[in-house]
Amino acid sequence: MSTRTLRTQVAIVGAGPSGLLLGALLHKAGVEAVVIEQRSADYVLGRIRAGVLEQVTVDLLDEAGVGERMHAEGLPHDGFEIAFGDRIHHIDLHGLTGKRVMVYGQTEVTRDLMQARAAAGLQTFYESQGVSVHDFDTHRPCVRFTAPDGQPVEVQADFIAGCDGFHGVCRASVPEGAITNFEKVYPFGWLGILADVPPVSHELIYASSEQGFALCSMRSKTRSRYYVQCSLADHADAWSDEAFWAELRRRLPAQVAANLTTGPSIEKSIAPLRSFVAEPLRFGRLFLAGDAGHIVPPTGAKGLNLAATDVGYLARSLTEFYRGSEAGIDSYSERCLRRIWKAERFSWWFTTLMHKLPENGAFGARIQQAELDYLTRSEAAQRALAENYVGLPMEA
Amino acid sequence: MSTRTLRTQVAIVGAGPSGLLLGALLHKAGVEAVVIEQRSADYVLGRIRAGVLEQVTVDLLDEAGVGERMHAEGLPHDGFEIAFGDRIHHIDLHGLTGKRVMVYGQTEVTRDLMQARAAAGLQTFYESQGVSVHDFDTHRPCVRFTAPDGQPVEVQADFIAGCDGFHGVCRASVPEGAITNFEKVYPFGWLGILADVPPVSHELIYASSEQGFALCSMRSKTRSRYYVQCSLADHADAWSDEAFWAELRRRLPAQVAANLTTGPSIEKSIAPLRSFVAEPLRFGRLFLAGDAGHIVPPTGAKGLNLAATDVGYLARSLTEFYRGSEAGIDSYSERCLRRIWKAERFSWWFTTLMHKLPENGAFGARIQQAELDYLTRSEAAQRALAENYVGLPMEA
Repeated sequence: MSTRTLRTQVAIVGAGPSGLLLGALLHKAGVEAVVIEQRSADYVLGRIRAGVLEQVTVDLLDEAGVGERMHAEGLPHDGFEIAFGDRIHHIDLHGLTGKRVMVYGQTEVTRDLMQARAAAGLQTFYESQGVSVHDFDTHRPCVRFTAPDGQPVEVQADFIAGCDGFHGVCRASVPEGAITNFEKVYPFGWLGILADVPPVSHELIYASSEQGFALCSMRSKTRSRYYVQCSLADHADAWSDEAFWAELRRRLPAQVAANLTTGPSIEKSIAPLRSFVAEPLRFGRLFLAGDAGHIVPPTGAKGLNLAATDVGYLARSLTEFYRGSEAGIDSYSERCLRRIWKAERFSWWFTTLMHKLPENGAFGARIQQAELDYLTRSEAAQRALAENYVGLPMEA
Repeated sequence: MSTRTLRTQVAIVGAGPSGLLLGALLHKAGVEAVVIEQRSADYVLGRIRAGVLEQVTVDLLDEAGVGERMHAEGLPHDGFEIAFGDRIHHIDLHGLTGKRVMVYGQTEVTRDLMQARAAAGLQTFYESQGVSVHDFDTHRPCVRFTAPDGQPVEVQADFIAGCDGFHGVCRASVPEGAITNFEKVYPFGWLGILADVPPVSHELIYASSEQGFALCSMRSKTRSRYYVQCSLADHADAWSDEAFWAELRRRLPAQVAANLTTGPSIEKSIAPLRSFVAEPLRFGRLFLAGDAGHIVPPTGAKGLNLAATDVGYLARSLTEFYRGSEAGIDSYSERCLRRIWKAERFSWWFTTLMHKLPENGAFGARIQQAELDYLTRSEAAQRALAENYVGLPMEA
């Protein structure tokens, strides 16, 4: 078959929340984009991820015109709980910062963005095989792939947006000497389950215990998401539901454990924890955004929020480009990285504060206890935590 | 010679600032104490240590009646500077916390306490050889030593206060199973010099640079104390004054380095950095206070201040004992340790924020930069730093 050639302004690789949000923001700004995704729409929707949205993310979804269901069904949270030993301490996000967060699953965000894209008749290529990116060191980059029907396709664009995640082709296509990777891998994972039981609390509970970290989270008022820190050698299959619930109970203060409603798991999996940043995030006409450029451990739920602010910056920068200014695209990488590194610091700090870290020894464990004790007694320390949790502002 | 036997209420081992301050506070409260020191008074005065006093330390020195010269000659500081790269940021301690710190050398504090003790005619045994502590698991503990003239002495007391530092006999005399030590040794030291040159700034400057940490400090308006992070393999003798000043300049922002006045060093030495805490701090009728029970790295100058608050708690507890309540001595260890661990956390955090730590890799270095960038832009983070720097309040 001969190659089908398309021309657009921005070729977006990846139809996860970052790629779709970028497409929606560009569409609102009158910039044309095509989205190319190697997986099916159902596969993308099947990925279960975090669901705590910062105000800036909520604002960007509103700006993209996809906020309606989120505001109707999402759960605004004014705070969360930190538990350690038998103590439980409320972090009053709204009182400390004037802001709140929105609990609304990434799957739902993706679904809303997909539906809006389809409704607007915007082009998305799902199940694209052999996606490759080319010539981004020129003014005429392109993306090539094979459509499900075997048709070779070439999307010619002014820019490529690499929204294809940590394992995607975009970052992998950058010449080795042009990129520096910063990475920290944590020596433990999160065993998570999803269950159709009411959450133990209307707010999230981050718990530090002698047995390790636990997190009580939720997707809705009837669907709970719970996690326990586990060994990387563990297998999710080896954990029965009963064993999971028992372990979770052990890690929660007695008064919380007593209220826990358990039930059969819908999903159970182990995720490793990683901190990763690529520098820079722009290579000629290729921009990396979201997980393609950086990964945070899930503690504090910064991953989706960073992806949203990356594409927020990128949509503005590209819109400015088409209005005649290259200032935005020239500073994209630097502006993103300033905010990314602060979120990386916060996620690393919150992870090391809350998890059991035998490699830090007895001194390290006492330092964690002292920090938790200090945090729960210092308004300044709580305010610093809260302002990071609700999200630092996007720079102009 | 037959043993000379003395009877007192509190036998204080160590005539450094903690032992002498404890003696002064007890004297004000009408409790009798004898101080036993293995070194000479001149040797004790010759030890050069930190000189940033928290408000609670200033208050305790006032309470002990030895604050007069400190208020006349000490330098109240309302803030300090944090430098990194070519940025320099003022931490407004007074604006952020309503408190300030007092720059007044430990040597001067010790001198004031010595003179007050001598003026009040209180007994101090200097140059005591072979000091040993006994029977602190009974109600009649004692301290034995040999006076400089060869006379064996036994001080019988109700209590022994171990104020004899990290290498002292008191902690070493505790049965091994009764004590738990927590420790972290840092893989670098501080090379410090003292010079009779005016300080480069009227405030302290803590500098993080690619070459490592540097600190610009002072003892007075004409005497400066400077430090640079160095290798533990370094020898102070191998550093010429010129080499020190050149290295210091490299680590300071250009606008600071340009104002540096150099001169011959009066003293030059390398100190290792250590975090250490012993738990508990009470063993029957023996109490540990100050460096005998815990060590902090010098970043943030918490060592002398922790010693002062330890003996503040101890003086109150012993005074309460003689008024009929054992509640104070029973909670001494726990109350001290709560405050000590918070200061340990702060000192560890401030050390790891400001020093070059190659063992943390490139990711760790970026996290440090991100934290400095965040700190200088967040009032909450600055307030948390400031409230620790000026000193957390003593619990009632």
